[in-house]
Amino acid sequence: MSDKLLVVSTDCHAGLPIADYKPYVESKYHEMLDMAVPITVDMLEKSESMFLIKEINDAWRAPIQQELTGAWDYDERVRMLATDGIACEVIFPDGITEKNTPPFGAGLGLSPRDMVPELQWAGAMAHNRWLAELCANDPARHLGVASIPLLWDVGQAVEAVRWCVDNGLRAVMIPTLWGEHDAYHHVKYDPFWEVCQDLGVIVHFHSGPAPHPEYFGKGFPVEDQRSELPGAMGIYVSEVMWWLYRPLTFMIWGGVFERFPRLKVMIVEGGTMFMLPSWLRLMDFQYHEGEISAKLGDFKSHLSMSPSEYYQRNVGIGASCVRRADLDERDTIGADQIMWGSDFPHPEGTWPNTQAYYRETFSGLPEDAGRKILGDNAVAFYGLDRERLQQVADEIGPDKSIFN
Amino acid sequence: MSDKLLVVSTDCHAGLPIADYKPYVESKYHEMLDMAVPITVDMLEKSESMFLIKEINDAWRAPIQQELTGAWDYDERVRMLATDGIACEVIFPDGITEKNTPPFGAGLGLSPRDMVPELQWAGAMAHNRWLAELCANDPARHLGVASIPLLWDVGQAVEAVRWCVDNGLRAVMIPTLWGEHDAYHHVKYDPFWEVCQDLGVIVHFHSGPAPHPEYFGKGFPVEDQRSELPGAMGIYVSEVMWWLYRPLTFMIWGGVFERFPRLKVMIVEGGTMFMLPSWLRLMDFQYHEGEISAKLGDFKSHLSMSPSEYYQRNVGIGASCVRRADLDERDTIGADQIMWGSDFPHPEGTWPNTQAYYRETFSGLPEDAGRKILGDNAVAFYGLDRERLQQVADEIGPDKSIFN
Repeated sequence: MSDKLLVVSTDCHAGLPIADYKPYVESKYHEMLDMAVPITVDMLEKSESMFLIKEINDAWRAPIQQELTGAWDYDERVRMLATDGIACEVIFPDGITEKNTPPFGAGLGLSPRDMVPELQWAGAMAHNRWLAELCANDPARHLGVASIPLLWDVGQAVEAVRWCVDNGLRAVMIPTLWGEHDAYHHVKYDPFWEVCQDLGVIVHFHSGPAPHPEYFGKGFPVEDQRSELPGAMGIYVSEVMWWLYRPLTFMIWGGVFERFPRLKVMIVEGGTMFMLPSWLRLMDFQYHEGEISAKLGDFKSHLSMSPSEYYQRNVGIGASCVRRADLDERDTIGADQIMWGSDFPHPEGTWPNTQAYYRETFSGLPEDAGRKILGDNAVAFYGLDRERLQQVADEIGPDKSIFN
Repeated sequence: MSDKLLVVSTDCHAGLPIADYKPYVESKYHEMLDMAVPITVDMLEKSESMFLIKEINDAWRAPIQQELTGAWDYDERVRMLATDGIACEVIFPDGITEKNTPPFGAGLGLSPRDMVPELQWAGAMAHNRWLAELCANDPARHLGVASIPLLWDVGQAVEAVRWCVDNGLRAVMIPTLWGEHDAYHHVKYDPFWEVCQDLGVIVHFHSGPAPHPEYFGKGFPVEDQRSELPGAMGIYVSEVMWWLYRPLTFMIWGGVFERFPRLKVMIVEGGTMFMLPSWLRLMDFQYHEGEISAKLGDFKSHLSMSPSEYYQRNVGIGASCVRRADLDERDTIGADQIMWGSDFPHPEGTWPNTQAYYRETFSGLPEDAGRKILGDNAVAFYGLDRERLQQVADEIGPDKSIFN
């Protein structure tokens, strides 16, 4: 075993400056795109001013302007991976937080709220086309996560998954919130789970989405009503993880993993993982005991396994910028399921201080556990090319001395 | 100290058969009531057929038909309390599950969905009038929880609280879900918190409400779409507790307990309390550490205490039919905050087997902890008349031998 660690970041981001998506957008939407770009840029800036304190963000960015272009520039990106010691990355949309989102609301949130289905699809496929090109530079090292606005039309989503596979992408992201649409226990989504299972496409949910207007006011993102709504951000950071796990609650009880036992789901950037063990424990309690279950009728005979067993078999945890305290609880979260991520180029990520982060966070952790979390779990979950990636790691990977 | 335990049930239910509310409804709504009653009865039966398996419910009821009338009959109710050894009870709406709800959607859920504000107020006040009469039979033993549809009009809610106090009621229930209305961190609710604090009225949230159409289908409660939505009940029982705690997340971060330090809130029938400690731990983490907090700006300088400190100071936990496993974790939940409840006359409650439940659940528990949970915590939280209640307990209370 090499002294150089094979590191996979399961949470990186990439995206073009929004106007640069134009060549990837079908021409019939170009006129609409020209109108949408300035409006979107303005709204993104207003929205992000609520999530990013400008002074802090500006100070953080000042010394790394060139490196930040790795959000879309391939050569710069490869240098970033080398600096961070990352052999392989999983790539979500939305690079520099408020600048690099796909057009027509097809970015990280994939919210159905106030969206035009046809346009959101157009924006998503534009990003997917560009992403496929980016990853084609070195498919073993770059796993692009395609944006799939699943809620509008399951048939179209199935076709999009086939397009992804044909174009080298085998990871997809779907909305974390379904708004007024059917939730993920509805059997109408079965064709989507089926095609993902059959083609080995991993379904991703990425943290961030939550019912923001409830926290920040009905005018969100344009109007800032914080003086009337004190503590909104505290509520958001206390709830966002629950919204991230929520699709799994519906999929597990809905029997999705019973009908599609080889379907894999990845939950990414869940922050501190305090609530994960108790969420699993609660679902298992309801499955195994729940004295009220007789009164409520049969809601589990369609499940041959307990909720936590589906979780262990079918789910991966993208533990971006994971804290040491969470790693110390790895056995209750799932020591074989936790996969590290750098969150490049978001300011809450470890980049550009990833090397220091490795030493601070992993010092004293058993090497076996650390290797799993930093890379081996992801190699197994995503079915990566270990031999090729170890060659890369031997050149750029961090040394196992981080565990000293 | 007496060998007879002073028991307070912080979760009992009472209500008239819906048509019998008519004398308590303002006459201008009588015509509307006559139309609404048969529709409501039909909808309740359809809705409840999803939550209560008819055969189980019928079998449970058959031997206790007479005793169940304690849901509205005072003498029968006092006999029930004696049988259960309960000296004092906190009374929520909705007696026999699908029969005794106040008219116009003013029952336990107090949902704003599809409701006419004026009518929901009329139904709530009808119930409150009847409840005040019921409790006036012996105010030290019966604490009625008035229904307050807070969301429509804060000023009207403030007036209703004053009416409650004038009529002997000093506990109120408000909606757990706010739907499209402003959430509870909005400062517009301050006059309501203020009047409750100033008049010593305790605000209650009762378990049950959750976004049912998401689980059971858009047609809920009339249409049963369970075949298309497998596992809906499993999702419900896995989420309902989170929806119950949610108002507190908003109130704590919103600074409600900072501005109204003597306001008391009671959270009732939260089921298994697995998630309570981790919810508190997560909020405290975000308050104390949250490395992203600088990026997110100041969301806590308006709070002089941590979330768990507000929880300890201002919140009571109604642990209806609490399991022994939860009692064994009492120190992480709050040993001075847990208050038992029987949930009479709901079939998931301990009644009519409460005496057996006492022995099974409390055997081996330290007497001091048991006395707190069964009654002493409630005496302190609600400011009850201990002397009078101990006299009642000396006649009907369970013996401390249940702790053997």
